[in-house]
Amino acid sequence: MVTDRVKQILSWYSSDSVGVKTNLARLLNHGSLAGTGKLVILPVDQGFEHGPARSFAPNPPAYDPDYHFQLGIDSGCNAYAAPLGSLEASADKFAGQIPLILKLNNSDTLSKMEDPCSAVTASVKDAVRLGCSAIGYTIYPGSGARNVMYEELRELVLEAKEYGLPSVVWAYPRGALSKDGETAIDVVAYAAQISCQLGAHVVKVKPPKDFIEQPEAKKVFEKYGIATKTMADRIRHVIQGAFNGKRIVIFSGGEAKGTAELLEEVRGIAAGGAFGSIMGRNAFQRPRAEALKLLGDVMDIYRKA
Amino acid sequence: MVTDRVKQILSWYSSDSVGVKTNLARLLNHGSLAGTGKLVILPVDQGFEHGPARSFAPNPPAYDPDYHFQLGIDSGCNAYAAPLGSLEASADKFAGQIPLILKLNNSDTLSKMEDPCSAVTASVKDAVRLGCSAIGYTIYPGSGARNVMYEELRELVLEAKEYGLPSVVWAYPRGALSKDGETAIDVVAYAAQISCQLGAHVVKVKPPKDFIEQPEAKKVFEKYGIATKTMADRIRHVIQGAFNGKRIVIFSGGEAKGTAELLEEVRGIAAGGAFGSIMGRNAFQRPRAEALKLLGDVMDIYRKA
Amino acid sequence: MVTDRVKQILSWYSSDSVGVKTNLARLLNHGSLAGTGKLVILPVDQGFEHGPARSFAPNPPAYDPDYHFQLGIDSGCNAYAAPLGSLEASADKFAGQIPLILKLNNSDTLSKMEDPCSAVTASVKDAVRLGCSAIGYTIYPGSGARNVMYEELRELVLEAKEYGLPSVVWAYPRGALSKDGETAIDVVAYAAQISCQLGAHVVKVKPPKDFIEQPEAKKVFEKYGIATKTMADRIRHVIQGAFNGKRIVIFSGGEAKGTAELLEEVRGIAAGGAFGSIMGRNAFQRPRAEALKLLGDVMDIYRKA
Amino acid sequence: MVTDRVKQILSWYSSDSVGVKTNLARLLNHGSLAGTGKLVILPVDQGFEHGPARSFAPNPPAYDPDYHFQLGIDSGCNAYAAPLGSLEASADKFAGQIPLILKLNNSDTLSKMEDPCSAVTASVKDAVRLGCSAIGYTIYPGSGARNVMYEELRELVLEAKEYGLPSVVWAYPRGALSKDGETAIDVVAYAAQISCQLGAHVVKVKPPKDFIEQPEAKKVFEKYGIATKTMADRIRHVIQGAFNGKRIVIFSGGEAKGTAELLEEVRGIAAGGAFGSIMGRNAFQRPRAEALKLLGDVMDIYRKA
Amino acid sequence: MVTDRVKQILSWYSSDSVGVKTNLARLLNHGSLAGTGKLVILPVDQGFEHGPARSFAPNPPAYDPDYHFQLGIDSGCNAYAAPLGSLEASADKFAGQIPLILKLNNSDTLSKMEDPCSAVTASVKDAVRLGCSAIGYTIYPGSGARNVMYEELRELVLEAKEYGLPSVVWAYPRGALSKDGETAIDVVAYAAQISCQLGAHVVKVKPPKDFIEQPEAKKVFEKYGIATKTMADRIRHVIQGAFNGKRIVIFSGGEAKGTAELLEEVRGIAAGGAFGSIMGRNAFQRPRAEALKLLGDVMDIYRKA
Repeated sequence: MVTDRVKQILSWYSSDSVGVKTNLARLLNHGSLAGTGKLVILPVDQGFEHGPARSFAPNPPAYDPDYHFQLGIDSGCNAYAAPLGSLEASADKFAGQIPLILKLNNSDTLSKMEDPCSAVTASVKDAVRLGCSAIGYTIYPGSGARNVMYEELRELVLEAKEYGLPSVVWAYPRGALSKDGETAIDVVAYAAQISCQLGAHVVKVKPPKDFIEQPEAKKVFEKYGIATKTMADRIRHVIQGAFNGKRIVIFSGGEAKGTAELLEEVRGIAAGGAFGSIMGRNAFQRPRAEALKLLGDVMDIYRKA
Repeated sequence: MVTDRVKQILSWYSSDSVGVKTNLARLLNHGSLAGTGKLVILPVDQGFEHGPARSFAPNPPAYDPDYHFQLGIDSGCNAYAAPLGSLEASADKFAGQIPLILKLNNSDTLSKMEDPCSAVTASVKDAVRLGCSAIGYTIYPGSGARNVMYEELRELVLEAKEYGLPSVVWAYPRGALSKDGETAIDVVAYAAQISCQLGAHVVKVKPPKDFIEQPEAKKVFEKYGIATKTMADRIRHVIQGAFNGKRIVIFSGGEAKGTAELLEEVRGIAAGGAFGSIMGRNAFQRPRAEALKLLGDVMDIYRKA
Repeated sequence: MVTDRVKQILSWYSSDSVGVKTNLARLLNHGSLAGTGKLVILPVDQGFEHGPARSFAPNPPAYDPDYHFQLGIDSGCNAYAAPLGSLEASADKFAGQIPLILKLNNSDTLSKMEDPCSAVTASVKDAVRLGCSAIGYTIYPGSGARNVMYEELRELVLEAKEYGLPSVVWAYPRGALSKDGETAIDVVAYAAQISCQLGAHVVKVKPPKDFIEQPEAKKVFEKYGIATKTMADRIRHVIQGAFNGKRIVIFSGGEAKGTAELLEEVRGIAAGGAFGSIMGRNAFQRPRAEALKLLGDVMDIYRKA
Repeated sequence: MVTDRVKQILSWYSSDSVGVKTNLARLLNHGSLAGTGKLVILPVDQGFEHGPARSFAPNPPAYDPDYHFQLGIDSGCNAYAAPLGSLEASADKFAGQIPLILKLNNSDTLSKMEDPCSAVTASVKDAVRLGCSAIGYTIYPGSGARNVMYEELRELVLEAKEYGLPSVVWAYPRGALSKDGETAIDVVAYAAQISCQLGAHVVKVKPPKDFIEQPEAKKVFEKYGIATKTMADRIRHVIQGAFNGKRIVIFSGGEAKGTAELLEEVRGIAAGGAFGSIMGRNAFQRPRAEALKLLGDVMDIYRKA
Repeated sequence: MVTDRVKQILSWYSSDSVGVKTNLARLLNHGSLAGTGKLVILPVDQGFEHGPARSFAPNPPAYDPDYHFQLGIDSGCNAYAAPLGSLEASADKFAGQIPLILKLNNSDTLSKMEDPCSAVTASVKDAVRLGCSAIGYTIYPGSGARNVMYEELRELVLEAKEYGLPSVVWAYPRGALSKDGETAIDVVAYAAQISCQLGAHVVKVKPPKDFIEQPEAKKVFEKYGIATKTMADRIRHVIQGAFNGKRIVIFSGGEAKGTAELLEEVRGIAAGGAFGSIMGRNAFQRPRAEALKLLGDVMDIYRKA
């Protein structure tokens, strides 16, 4: 049964096929938040992005790919997102127990590339073969390799549609930006807009900071009094910039931090109208019991938002 | 019913298929200017090109993709042009109410690229799927990435023809040019000529300024006394340079400005024999009522031209 | 009816299909020089290469694509060569009245590229669709982008053969050469040889000057006493270097100049055994009557050669 | 007959086709170590990588491709891995006598490339044609050409799966790393993790040294007390980082060295839980009798591990 | 009838199709040396590589493509190798009279490229269309464009196999090498090994000099006492490095030189176990009678070797 809220959300994707909308509904109808229109997703790509020790030494059972499937299932997450190898290792064992998102591109921290650009490490056909409900792709707006990424994404989104799969876009500005600029409110909102224009069904950005990177944008924020002081203010602007709230936008938890601080941040995100959170390191680097508790608390915040 | 003027225009595209000519006729036969051979088109790609705040904060309802479809329909524009995401969000809701042009490539202002080149962010198949009447593509004559763009365009024009879709080319010179040179009369006319040679059915350029960039061209302008003093003079040269008036050439309004100044500019453009205007920021950044009034006034100028 | 001379020429292309030879025969059997084995071709790509004012202001009717078709037909040229847009604009109107050569790649003078390389702006399929009798392609021997061009040409020649179309190669040395070296006799002969090796059916080079660019070549020219003093001498060397006269080689008129000077040059070219001339600016930048007279005089020279 | 241990190993590849698992079983069920879940593989790509004299002069019979097939067979290795030419030369003669791994990319030491990247010198179809049981591919994590390699590998892994062939990945970090960093424990474990994420069925790395390259990793190794002192400690960490032991990871012998030292190293590798060794120069550069003895001793160590 | 020696040679290519072996047999069974297992091939690509005057002025009849076919036939060469244009010009006329090798890539000396890399100027399909018995391809081991060439070759070899055509690889080290290093014995032997590994059926290298380029190789040559003093010594090492003599390796004559010196060199090459010579400039730049005599003498040397 599909709730009215889920029906409303699906109505914003009316030019998509029934197949794509069905998989979008699968993401929205699974786990603790099923039917609320909110999502909490467990992503685990840190093994690829930071190496195994930095990712899993804090909680050694997490070295095992099975661990994350089970954590995603038991915590009631809407979906589990990971690179090819992690899904291949355990997808058969947990088939049908949680919607999967195959992250099609990934980066590591061993090489230094002039223009940041992840490698495409899996294909849409892999996602189909592994029973996934969506594909995931990371763009770096601001990179000199922008065209490579946007054009790869265009092709992957189109191919995924042919298989009835929606696309989740991770938008991490970097490249021709200051360090602060990577999470500046104007830049994060811009990255969300770009993702929507590129055909993303779900957009994932970092929680924006009260800082404006682009001089041209600064003038506009001041002239029109766009509020950026509280997290809720800033989230509201991002959501508005993502087709006036008609695209699903979720937020990461950022670097691992204390539980209280983390929940406070999530409350701000939820208050601003976010569709949910995507929470990796903050979940799987804690002992399992603590992770389950934390994810449950986060879901509670969204359920009551 | 097709007017004699529209029939005459279509006759210049006689080597094209009936399918392409039918879609060209759709653009010419829709809205307030239907049948006059003139066009006013609403383009909204600023969200992608400049970010959401700079584009929509002046008139917040414009954050919503539906807004622009409705504005295009209610103002009697010939067509609405936008990137993939914007069309996907609302095309189903407004199906059949206004001809659509899918802008296949787009650029953002977050990255700094040595050789300016937009990313191809949508495909011809997307245009077909969304019920569009034409594709749009931006070239930057003068860029070191010229070959990439001209060759992409060649392939897209050819593919679009297979689906009966005409091509609208946005020609914005930049790269190995002075800032003034980007809108110099010799350069704008040259950009229009290049677009026609590349197979564009409709060409969109900026209103040229009374300035000549290329020394070789300057000699010719002087020797043959080509008039460039008034806007009408310059438009006349551009139109002549676009196959002696046998290709549809329309002009942008440029940066947002006062209404009187804007209409004065349009009068000059129309007097020079332009086929119409494409007006984005000047329209959607005003309150809706003002925008409708402005677009109506612009159409009046062309109707009487 | 095919003359003995045309039969002889066709015999040099004996590994080609009947289809290719038929189109080659069409070029040789049209216009004033039909059957003589000589060709005068009208090429108009200056609008793309130099911009509209520099190309057409000297003779404004030439802004119109129809003008050149009519000029080519009325003057009795063997063929008319132009880029995509120009042919698309008028090919239907003049269908069957003159053999057409679609120039598949073109360059403009707005951008400065490190390694000169034209953009491929039309396809073999366009040539077929527009009823052309051959494709045209420009290479720049000496450019650092040599491989890109030679490899594109290889693919286009092969594809054209599948449609029974011969290939005309414009060979303009530039890049790692001195300004004089671009028309040096050793370089022009080398460029003709390269074109033949790449599979060109017809080669177009500039009239060579009495200058030798390459030190290694200079030694050989001196040792073996290769004559380079008169135009006829130099043409004779180029023709010899193009498979000992078994490939059709024609020469451009170069920059616009006085009639007497021009005809004198053509006489030298013809005396050296050239297969003909390709004459653009010198024809279409004059008033129509003068152009018809000039082209007629040029054809007379070849008829008597 | 498949042993319980082999069944267990195959169970970790449960999302793969029966075809892929069958070929994986072939590798595990051949030679002296058949059924033990351990592997010793003979790789001979030094001819390509270092030239013939440096590779084969120490033991001249090894110039002949037949030599290595016979050595692999007689020593009881699980498989023989080599580039295209070596396999083509002898595969027909030894058909069915030993599982083959076709190394699809190779590098030579004649050219100096800024971003290290092997050339793809054979195809999956070659592997099929030559009756191979797996493909091999080398990545250089840390190289600026990382994306080229990861993306080639993705395509080759996917294509190999279509033919039922598993993939063996040689992971040699280099590029933006110190010389010591190339075999640092954090880097080797990271390279193994990346290989697993890219879909490798078997991973081949070098024995790691007691050195940590990345400052961020160093903090974590210290904070969580990850043991790196003995070879067994380090191997254990690599195996854990490769999906908690659920992917086959084997180790090279490195540069040619004394027998005692070599066997001592293998004992440490085996004690850490490695799945086996891949031993090239240390085997084929010795006289045949010595090589057979050495490989037998190595297999003994693994059999007893 | 196939001799025992030819049967033996074919046996080294046992993983190839009957089609490929048949064409290899055609090369071995044609001309004066038919059945001996030795080959003398006439290659004429100098027109492309050095220009027409430098190539053909010493013997003007050689400007004509027919000349070389006739020379190859009358001298009893095993095959004639040339670029596309040369073969197209005369292949039909001489069909069936001599096996042909189409050189698929070529370079000219007009442009200066940072990383040496020939352009692919013909295709396997051209070779089939022109009735060729093999394809030819040049690699430059040592060039920074190594990967481009090796990967092109891989694809061409594979495609050629589909048509039953063997591959002849010209291996000319250059790039990151000293001038002497290009013909150093270690480098030439390495280039031959690489060619074999890439799947070449026939390898063509330059006669090596008594010089060692690579320090690592120098140590090995000294340690194992590899003889390099006489030409025969060096040829022996190259042949050994080419799969222990199980691949056909032939040698060029290098720059044009005196007859006595040339024959002396060939005697050394033959004494070292070479499979033959490939002789271009030294043949076609002499008067025809002298060329026939020279080629006959060379064949005699191999017949008696």
